Amino acid sequence: MSGHLTIALDAMGGDLGPEAVIPGAALALSKNPSLKFMIFGDESKIIPLLKKYPQLEQASRLIHTDSFVSAEEKPGVALRNGKNSSMRLAINAVADKQADCIVSGGNTGALMVMAKLVLKCLPGIERPAIASLLPTMNGETVMLDLGANLECDSEMLVQFAILGSVYARVVRGHAQPTVGLLNIGSEDMKGHDEIKIAAQILNQIKFPGKYIGFIEGNDIPLGKVDVVVTDGFTGNVALKTAEGVSKLISNMLKRSLKKSPLAMIGAFLAQGALKNLKKEMDPRLYNGGMFLGVDGVCVKSHGGMDHIGFANAIKYASEIAARNFNVRVAAEIAEVMAQEKSLGLYDQMSPESGRDAALQEKVS
Amino acid sequence: MSGHLTIALDAMGGDLGPEAVIPGAALALSKNPSLKFMIFGDESKIIPLLKKYPQLEQASRLIHTDSFVSAEEKPGVALRNGKNSSMRLAINAVADKQADCIVSGGNTGALMVMAKLVLKCLPGIERPAIASLLPTMNGETVMLDLGANLECDSEMLVQFAILGSVYARVVRGHAQPTVGLLNIGSEDMKGHDEIKIAAQILNQIKFPGKYIGFIEGNDIPLGKVDVVVTDGFTGNVALKTAEGVSKLISNMLKRSLKKSPLAMIGAFLAQGALKNLKKEMDPRLYNGGMFLGVDGVCVKSHGGMDHIGFANAIKYASEIAARNFNVRVAAEIAEVMAQEKSLGLYDQMSPESGRDAALQEKVS
Repeated sequence: MSGHLTIALDAMGGDLGPEAVIPGAALALSKNPSLKFMIFGDESKIIPLLKKYPQLEQASRLIHTDSFVSAEEKPGVALRNGKNSSMRLAINAVADKQADCIVSGGNTGALMVMAKLVLKCLPGIERPAIASLLPTMNGETVMLDLGANLECDSEMLVQFAILGSVYARVVRGHAQPTVGLLNIGSEDMKGHDEIKIAAQILNQIKFPGKYIGFIEGNDIPLGKVDVVVTDGFTGNVALKTAEGVSKLISNMLKRSLKKSPLAMIGAFLAQGALKNLKKEMDPRLYNGGMFLGVDGVCVKSHGGMDHIGFANAIKYASEIAARNFNVRVAAEIAEVMAQEKSLGLYDQMSPESGRDAALQEKVS
Repeated sequence: MSGHLTIALDAMGGDLGPEAVIPGAALALSKNPSLKFMIFGDESKIIPLLKKYPQLEQASRLIHTDSFVSAEEKPGVALRNGKNSSMRLAINAVADKQADCIVSGGNTGALMVMAKLVLKCLPGIERPAIASLLPTMNGETVMLDLGANLECDSEMLVQFAILGSVYARVVRGHAQPTVGLLNIGSEDMKGHDEIKIAAQILNQIKFPGKYIGFIEGNDIPLGKVDVVVTDGFTGNVALKTAEGVSKLISNMLKRSLKKSPLAMIGAFLAQGALKNLKKEMDPRLYNGGMFLGVDGVCVKSHGGMDHIGFANAIKYASEIAARNFNVRVAAEIAEVMAQEKSLGLYDQMSPESGRDAALQEKVS
């Protein structure tokens, strides 16, 4: 990373608000002292916290605003009434090139519509997707969409595959990332039409990743692919189920190790290893969902995260911003679209409804 | 359990075929000596195995057939060409009241279409769902659909809620099981229309369960509800993701415990507890998916299961068959449908497409 990155922070988002954001920024700064911050929010709440972290105070500019977007607010309402909210002002800072990225733990829907309105989508992208890193047997996998789009047609899935591949290549350093479409079986005949058509398109076009076919839920944690593509409903359920199972097992392990004196001694001796496991499984390590497809780096931190989780969301955002990610995505998208056009895949494309049917004819 | 239950077994289904089915039946019999079996399949493969288990041989009737349904066969083809297959003959045995239930590790799609054709659906049920038990923080939860129906309209989801509730009450002994609809947020405004309408209907009708609202993926392993209702695509992905995460964590744990001599000694001392955990997490314990809604007990064993898993599928099937489950479901379904009719929920119901819109008007 070269130069100074400036991170715009919505200090009022998330369950803990500034109590997580300010110590989180201080922690991120201690790990990457070149960072600068623009902090948006209520100064009466932020200043006392900032005083505790003189280094952060020095690296930050505080922009006061009374207004903030609540967790319950409908996105449309937030868009109309939240023009001076900490969330909106932080996004504006990215649009005005005062900041390189924005991180917020606030209302996901509101953050998404504001980011789309203010930062716009990359050329050729209709609907951005939320992408996060997940731990797997082989390191980390990027998965999208995790909840921005409940229903996705084949073209959206193809776009997600491209976005995810560029992310895996540019930010994660995979030369040719492997891509899988999440399905309920690996055979060609399985699944929705949207998925089958997306698979046919991904088999025909050249893009920065390597499409390897359908994958199933168990393939995600096994690390079968570098990029997992799915619709926002399925992705969100899968992600949260994974979190729940991880909690369940750590709970069962604790209970097991308390059942006999011998097990307790064993657990005591192995406590270093067990702590290490707990750390590896810590969901805070994987906090941060990027809105891939928005023309600007906008990262959502999970609303329930503490400062450690928030610091990781800052790290995640700064890694993306440092790599000039969106410029590279835009170039790749343009190239793929040109191919699709020359293949005639989208000739008969019409707004929404008839599109999948038209594509089906073309590719089958 | 009283009397003798007879289990029809498709000995040729699953990756291991008779090698899993016969020892699995022997294991199930050793735990429940009152069971009887009808074993369908290739006698040249089955008899040598059966010879190893004299008790099972005595409790079984072997019906020879050369024909079987392969894992790759399309359901329609299996239906036409598989009239003498081990799978089909085993299902026929249930239809002819020679057996109380059937267990197969074979092709899921073929098993479903054959079961529907031969056993028929319960009155009022359009599309059966696959239901399994899952381990949670509070014991076990039943979840459906796990893959029979990729897309589900609101009425199907309501039916699944009823089926799952009767199952939880009759087989699991919950007086009034709690039911949740799987969604990507707990607020009313979240999710697909199908889910929102199903929620409105479940709030209005009386049924054997208690509808508590939307739940999220992490609520499944936490045991927030006794019955998790979702479409077959989402359910299948969530289930398999949970399996994968469980494998990932047990792998990480093993690796962690090998990292230092102290951890290895600790693991040695705690080996009883760790084995216990492994056992609690063992997916074979939860093997067996019931086709809820089919008028006859038909249980699918996971194709990759060994004899221990297959024995658990037999146990699962026999518990359901022993409780006269389908008679009780049929009565509950009839009652709920009468209510829906008197509430006028389905008056304007038309075949498929316009239905959700009609319901939307009625309930909102």
